[in-house]
Amino acid sequence: MHKVFGDMLSGNCYKVKLLMEFLNIPHEWVHVDILASETHTGNFQKMNPNARIPVVALSNERYLWESNAILNYFAEGTHFLPSAKYERAKVLQWQFFEQYSHEPYIATARYINKYLGLPKEREAEYHGKQAGGHKALAVMDKHLAQNQFFLGTQATIADISLYAYTHVADEGGFDLSDYGNIQRWFKDFETLPGYIKMSGGVAG
Amino acid sequence: MHKVFGDMLSGNCYKVKLLMEFLNIPHEWVHVDILASETHTGNFQKMNPNARIPVVALSNERYLWESNAILNYFAEGTHFLPSAKYERAKVLQWQFFEQYSHEPYIATARYINKYLGLPKEREAEYHGKQAGGHKALAVMDKHLAQNQFFLGTQATIADISLYAYTHVADEGGFDLSDYGNIQRWFKDFETLPGYIKMSGGVAG
Ligand SMILES: N[C@@H](CCC(=O)N[C@@H](CS)C(=O)NCC(=O)O)C(=O)O
Ligand SMILES: N[C@@H](CCC(=O)N[C@@H](CS)C(=O)NCC(=O)O)C(=O)O
Repeated sequence: MHKVFGDMLSGNCYKVKLLMEFLNIPHEWVHVDILASETHTGNFQKMNPNARIPVVALSNERYLWESNAILNYFAEGTHFLPSAKYERAKVLQWQFFEQYSHEPYIATARYINKYLGLPKEREAEYHGKQAGGHKALAVMDKHLAQNQFFLGTQATIADISLYAYTHVADEGGFDLSDYGNIQRWFKDFETLPGYIKMSGGVAG
Repeated sequence: MHKVFGDMLSGNCYKVKLLMEFLNIPHEWVHVDILASETHTGNFQKMNPNARIPVVALSNERYLWESNAILNYFAEGTHFLPSAKYERAKVLQWQFFEQYSHEPYIATARYINKYLGLPKEREAEYHGKQAGGHKALAVMDKHLAQNQFFLGTQATIADISLYAYTHVADEGGFDLSDYGNIQRWFKDFETLPGYIKMSGGVAG
């Protein structure tokens, strides 16, 4: 059984959890506390020298890190990853968009606000994240005006990657009420069989 | 023939150029001037609503953006992308590492220094990029102590992605003299058949 090292409240880790639930992949979840620096031990860094969660242990010697790489690994051969070359590249395009143009704004603003309690010395950084976050949300909303999911009528790992932090963007100060297509997409995504909430189904 | 929209001095665009030269793929290079806001026209944003280069036109209706997604598209079926599932996921792992933990520090510091001439109001940001950049370089150097290329003895698109900005990291203020394995890797990379310099072979 695969071990997944992560924190259920981290969007990057939640992506992996969602796919495992959608695909019914047995796994053991090992909680890692980043605020207690558990990613900075020698043992952890043998798995991921970049000292971040999520990490998946495929065997005693094979570890895979980077949330979106993990999704591609497990989705291969399932309907969460198209087999045609162009469509597969489009999935990656949206995943790289997520990591470069979305997560650094939306997830970071959420982290500063929700986890750190918006301390004075990070207020300027927090406000500086808003424009970039809204730019990413606008790109998504426009695309979702023409497409049910990012790749069309079938949900893929591109949706999982983008859903993870978008659906909690309000915790980073992003008001989603102007993004009607994103809200419609949330509803469609949340009815996929196997869907679970970020907290792992527990209230909150 | 594919049209590639880009700027030969941008590392993200150079990645695409390198792969096309390595694989001998005929293409037309269309120069886009980002400082003249050519990514902000309506026509450009029909190709990439996220308003960035590089973009590849595969046909009149099919556009692909995000440098690393483009690399995966063109490398498929060649020795620049392994076919085994785990190795392919490892290529993606290093590419997501590049976009998340490397490029935002090293490419951005280079941009502020080389293109903007390190203006006073961006000095703090520039200095703030150094620690993250060195962290990424250290992860790479350690990996390259055990591996000729990122995936072993065969160069892949993971090397292309990481080479693009690492080999000009000095332009962002990163002294590479302590990273002996990275320097050895530069030499191995630069002898691959088809290799061209960033400027397209022209001096500079
Ligand atoms: N690009 C990585 C980002 C992973 C990441 O930044 N994880 C955070 C938690 S969400 C972490 O481990 N932080 C620990 C630290 O920065 O010390 C991915 O997608 O997996
Ligand atoms: N994650 C993207 C980044 C692309 C990117 O940021 N391109 C820059 C040039 S290196 C750009 O087009 N900037 C235009 C702008 O920001 O207005 C990729 O890998 O392709």
